[in-house]
Amino acid sequence: MTADAPTSLIAATLAAIRPADEAAAAAARERQGRLTKPPGSMGRLEELSVRLCAIAGTCPAPVPESAAVAIFAADHGVHAQGVSPWPQAVTAQMVGNFLAGGAVVNALAREANAQVVVVDMGIATELPAADGLLRRAVRPGTADMTTSPAMSAEEVSRAVEIGIEVAHELIDGGAQILVTGDMGIANTTASAALVSVLTETAPAEVTGRGTGIDDATLSLKVEVITRALERHRPTSTDPWHALAAVGGLEHAGLVGFLLGAAERRIPVVLDGVIACSAALVACAIVPSVTDYLVAGHRSAEPGATRALDHLGLNPLLALELRLGEGSGGTLALGLVRSAARLLTDVATFDSAGVTEHQV
Amino acid sequence: MTADAPTSLIAATLAAIRPADEAAAAAARERQGRLTKPPGSMGRLEELSVRLCAIAGTCPAPVPESAAVAIFAADHGVHAQGVSPWPQAVTAQMVGNFLAGGAVVNALAREANAQVVVVDMGIATELPAADGLLRRAVRPGTADMTTSPAMSAEEVSRAVEIGIEVAHELIDGGAQILVTGDMGIANTTASAALVSVLTETAPAEVTGRGTGIDDATLSLKVEVITRALERHRPTSTDPWHALAAVGGLEHAGLVGFLLGAAERRIPVVLDGVIACSAALVACAIVPSVTDYLVAGHRSAEPGATRALDHLGLNPLLALELRLGEGSGGTLALGLVRSAARLLTDVATFDSAGVTEHQV
Repeated sequence: MTADAPTSLIAATLAAIRPADEAAAAAARERQGRLTKPPGSMGRLEELSVRLCAIAGTCPAPVPESAAVAIFAADHGVHAQGVSPWPQAVTAQMVGNFLAGGAVVNALAREANAQVVVVDMGIATELPAADGLLRRAVRPGTADMTTSPAMSAEEVSRAVEIGIEVAHELIDGGAQILVTGDMGIANTTASAALVSVLTETAPAEVTGRGTGIDDATLSLKVEVITRALERHRPTSTDPWHALAAVGGLEHAGLVGFLLGAAERRIPVVLDGVIACSAALVACAIVPSVTDYLVAGHRSAEPGATRALDHLGLNPLLALELRLGEGSGGTLALGLVRSAARLLTDVATFDSAGVTEHQV
Repeated sequence: MTADAPTSLIAATLAAIRPADEAAAAAARERQGRLTKPPGSMGRLEELSVRLCAIAGTCPAPVPESAAVAIFAADHGVHAQGVSPWPQAVTAQMVGNFLAGGAVVNALAREANAQVVVVDMGIATELPAADGLLRRAVRPGTADMTTSPAMSAEEVSRAVEIGIEVAHELIDGGAQILVTGDMGIANTTASAALVSVLTETAPAEVTGRGTGIDDATLSLKVEVITRALERHRPTSTDPWHALAAVGGLEHAGLVGFLLGAAERRIPVVLDGVIACSAALVACAIVPSVTDYLVAGHRSAEPGATRALDHLGLNPLLALELRLGEGSGGTLALGLVRSAARLLTDVATFDSAGVTEHQV
């Protein structure tokens, strides 16, 4: 695979991504200054309202009431190395839980009035039959990154294409904002490996406890990642190779999802470390993708914070969440919509007859 | 006024307040452990879900979909000392804006599907006629705390009673959760004075820039508060006297509002420094009122953080908001409802057929 144009869909998507609209941002800043409140008093929600206008290319931006959470699910060959205490079958079981509406992300999506779709990118265990599952498996889980590349270049391309297609389908269906979701036992290992490569940080600094592993398993996890990186020698300047070498099928799907959203000028709320590591890959491919990303929360995983710092993103929430599934991103949807409403709903000093000039 | 039973409504309310229910909290903790997610992975939302059960006295607690924001509005005699750059007439103008639906809190309440009511506790300027205003003015603004007590003991009692009545009316009308709101040019001065007294902290450490005052006005504000405290010598052991000496009519209304909610076992989301200072008073009167309070956000005002620390409350949001009106509390409603939904909506390992035991 070459680094710039792996397939026609990917090439067309990359070519169509533009930076966010600075004129719309300027109009939003000017309008913020006329709203009936002291300047700056809505703090970070004001910046976000400006960002949403820059993303949409218009001021005010539409309030993104129609939201979709896409959960990219896959298994990981590196699970064989003992990096997670959970059996691999839990990936498929949790997908069943998502489809039945019983997982945390479903509860939060119900509260946030968001649609949930699940994309099988490559689950190793047979899935129960269920409506609402997008069956797009590229292969039944990645290969073990400690013994071979996790994916071939062709598999990465296919997985990225699927992510682009899912973004397009949801946006064509009316979604005004997307949320990243993920499921895959052992996927924090692939995420930490990607964060390590793309931010040029030692594995020990960006590897966390995932679902809650003990000290011995954490040491093993760092050692496994270190071994995989020594084997494949991925670099921050070749994100496609890094993704193939140590990424996951859901990471590749998420990369496409972010690219597809940026191309269509739709904001994406990032969840935790899996999404953040995919965002590093997407932004290494096309830097202006960052313009379209909203960091939903600061995950308890150290790699998430390292990735957000690298991307220059400041998360909206910091509630010590470490679940994944899209839970933290979904939880932030109300804040994003509220920020948009500042510019659509709030009266100006003129229109409300409120004294603007201070004594 | 005596410190324990100023009127029959207040006395009855104080006598009826009970600590939150530890048995319901224990049941909630046990249920959290069986939900289909790694233990603790929803971080602070898990604690909040437990708190909501303790408040309601049942597990799971109802998801508080029906919410009401009560904006207590009043003017302040201390405005004459030059502590705010905004003319006093802005209090009435902003009340007009609330009633017309054009203020920030209205936009956020629309997004959060919350009712907004405005209570005139004592606005100095004539108000425009409008539906939806509760006209309960005790007096047309407080007296200037630098020259006399802000309120008499009888005025404080009446204002606290009004707050209790407003809480009761909203709860009787179906509200399952309340949010504190406030409006009153110069009310951060009264708030800082109350925080200083009740947390025994020097005025300079708890006085902030309110709507955005300059250094000279900030120095003046600290000096004005210091002068008022020297004149009245309020102490942390007599919260009624402190409220009368340096509080505001909206602060007294909020104290009653918190007492009334605690009595009825209804959670209240605190907004910023005005609410936090009123919470200090209410909790000094009946300590177990804290059990019913949820800190919506960390206001940019230093007094808010001091008060929250004193109350042992950890805010849900930290977005550098400093508007008041109930904006930060309203913004947090979705998080509170989401926390409640963890216990009502999420499947258990048993019910979902997900493997609980780790390998």
